[in-house]
Amino acid sequence: MNETEEANETARLETFSDGVFAIAITLLVLEIHVPDAAEIAEHGGLAQALIDLYPSYLAYVTSFVTILIMWINHHLIFRAISRIDHFLFMFNGLLLLGITFVPFPTTVLAGHLDGDDSDVAAAFFAGTFALIALCFNLLWRYAAIGNRLLRRDINPAFVTAINFRYAFGIPIYSFAALIAFVSPEVSFGICVLLAILYFVPTRLQPVTLP
Amino acid sequence: MNETEEANETARLETFSDGVFAIAITLLVLEIHVPDAAEIAEHGGLAQALIDLYPSYLAYVTSFVTILIMWINHHLIFRAISRIDHFLFMFNGLLLLGITFVPFPTTVLAGHLDGDDSDVAAAFFAGTFALIALCFNLLWRYAAIGNRLLRRDINPAFVTAINFRYAFGIPIYSFAALIAFVSPEVSFGICVLLAILYFVPTRLQPVTLP
Amino acid sequence: MNETEEANETARLETFSDGVFAIAITLLVLEIHVPDAAEIAEHGGLAQALIDLYPSYLAYVTSFVTILIMWINHHLIFRAISRIDHFLFMFNGLLLLGITFVPFPTTVLAGHLDGDDSDVAAAFFAGTFALIALCFNLLWRYAAIGNRLLRRDINPAFVTAINFRYAFGIPIYSFAALIAFVSPEVSFGICVLLAILYFVPTRLQPVTLP
Amino acid sequence: MNETEEANETARLETFSDGVFAIAITLLVLEIHVPDAAEIAEHGGLAQALIDLYPSYLAYVTSFVTILIMWINHHLIFRAISRIDHFLFMFNGLLLLGITFVPFPTTVLAGHLDGDDSDVAAAFFAGTFALIALCFNLLWRYAAIGNRLLRRDINPAFVTAINFRYAFGIPIYSFAALIAFVSPEVSFGICVLLAILYFVPTRLQPVTLP
Repeated sequence: MNETEEANETARLETFSDGVFAIAITLLVLEIHVPDAAEIAEHGGLAQALIDLYPSYLAYVTSFVTILIMWINHHLIFRAISRIDHFLFMFNGLLLLGITFVPFPTTVLAGHLDGDDSDVAAAFFAGTFALIALCFNLLWRYAAIGNRLLRRDINPAFVTAINFRYAFGIPIYSFAALIAFVSPEVSFGICVLLAILYFVPTRLQPVTLP
Repeated sequence: MNETEEANETARLETFSDGVFAIAITLLVLEIHVPDAAEIAEHGGLAQALIDLYPSYLAYVTSFVTILIMWINHHLIFRAISRIDHFLFMFNGLLLLGITFVPFPTTVLAGHLDGDDSDVAAAFFAGTFALIALCFNLLWRYAAIGNRLLRRDINPAFVTAINFRYAFGIPIYSFAALIAFVSPEVSFGICVLLAILYFVPTRLQPVTLP
Repeated sequence: MNETEEANETARLETFSDGVFAIAITLLVLEIHVPDAAEIAEHGGLAQALIDLYPSYLAYVTSFVTILIMWINHHLIFRAISRIDHFLFMFNGLLLLGITFVPFPTTVLAGHLDGDDSDVAAAFFAGTFALIALCFNLLWRYAAIGNRLLRRDINPAFVTAINFRYAFGIPIYSFAALIAFVSPEVSFGICVLLAILYFVPTRLQPVTLP
Repeated sequence: MNETEEANETARLETFSDGVFAIAITLLVLEIHVPDAAEIAEHGGLAQALIDLYPSYLAYVTSFVTILIMWINHHLIFRAISRIDHFLFMFNGLLLLGITFVPFPTTVLAGHLDGDDSDVAAAFFAGTFALIALCFNLLWRYAAIGNRLLRRDINPAFVTAINFRYAFGIPIYSFAALIAFVSPEVSFGICVLLAILYFVPTRLQPVTLP
């Protein structure tokens, strides 16, 4: 392949990934359970039933924001990648597998955040994000080691900054998964904080302008 | 980033947003409950059961048209925006969070429009749109104040016109949410009217042609 | 707007519409009901339960193929349209409203094709397509009358051919909806035939090459 | 149509197909059944209930990876195709029909992989992929025979390689469907192996660079 074709292939993989992110983020709402007549009666009216769904809203917003921030990060590293190969394709696929899975632990968390099994639900939620962080690391490090698939004019400080940022994801999400058995609230709080942390932009650009 | 890259980033955010709008609008149909055998018997046949679903159709069409018109408005302001930054990204993300949430209040409204809790359901429906109007205002005003992220050749009359149009959304949708407790029908009617109002095109263009 | 901007706007509306078509066509599978343990026992095993879902498969394939062919036709008329205005936008929106609704009558038909209410289900199915045919006609005729929104170099024979093709949709689908009360099978057969008919390509191109 | 228009039409069909692939792959997660209170009690807690969902995870990952690899292969053959006609359109539509159907046999497999009907479920799963392999063959061979729709500068060795690869799909998936009645595990294993096999890249490019 020549350079134009390589750029096209990379753009196409990114467009496909964007589509998967957009769909996964939009599907989250289907996981909010609409209360039926019996449940409304049990809660003493629709208003109370809707209010008592707060764990669903909390889980929904957290997953939405986390996927959105992961999308920004995915895009950021793809601005540094200039070509793809079969292994990068596989690591990107693994990452998408993790992203599309998010609605499931979100529903589980929403259903158990205020119940007996909140520890297991929070651990499952944080554990899913630990696995996604692993996929992000595989994708990035595979592309970045020895500048294998990065742009030739890549800013080395940018690579260092991303390396640094990505070093945190796996251990902290794993810690959040373990701490869930002590305090589900702390576990969930760490997930929220980590999403916000990853939203903080790096001031470095993939390419330094002359 | 240079100007080409800025334009690319803006286009990419808009494409992603378009995808979310398209998916949210298409998911609405999943919220129309297919009547089962017991329900059909209760309604005295499939024909009557389908007719008695009219609140679902009404809610479906209203939400569909409202999201569609919001998409037009989203596109209109993005024709005026020439670059994005991290905060615009966040406000756009909040807006998409609101848009993807719409199927849920739509289902709630569809299930209660002709029942006892119609006041709560209509208030929840209008309240959701009040929040979306708030997100639209945040997005637009953040970009427009001091021409922060607008095109350099932006038509000032266009900015004034959009400012004027957006000033109505939050108070009127909020009023609709409150009036629901007096008359759910009036509340729902205001939501329909407001969507139509926002469909009325502004004759002004973001850029005046020489 | 200048011509480049007009072409961009038209392309963007078409991309959005394409997205809605792609999502609507993919959602159809969610309407195939997965048999649970009780239903499997009732049918005497999974194999028989899967075979007895044949009305679902039939409805699924018919809706899939019909939406796909409508997508081709949508694209064909957009190859003739060079600019959009607010009313075209509205008619296109109405058409998408019809397209996204298709999974619902498809599920109803799948659940009743071999039951007592097959007449109502078949009429509802054909009636939906009659309404979609109406939207297609509104969209096309609004753009075509007096060459309002068509390309300046449009081939008049192409316009005549599309006019001719579209004249059939509403009456035949309406007839299919009525005949359902006499024979649901004939009604469904007409829907299948009409889809195939609309798949037959017109040999005319929107623009004649010099 | 001239060559630019032909290229546009081909790109548009591919973009539409990409969208369908992206949606189908993301919908898979909806098929993982969220355990309700009664099921959790039966399994003795949420943790065990989530672990006992392993057939769902297995089916989910297998379908995800298989669709992803099919997407790569779809893209590979579209890099060789330079124009489309009505029949190619139809064969591509049939292929998409198969792809969008995958969530259904996946759910059936997930629900029966460890039960009495595992033979039927595995046969249904493998049989679906046999049909998809048939659609892939129709699409490719229709385009490739006599270089009907391929690029003029196509690399003949590439055509031979794809012909060779595609010759395996139908017989092996069909064999997997039959062997399911002897051993569902072997059948499922063949499906997994075949996906991996199709992931192995061909070193040949559609066009040889000068």
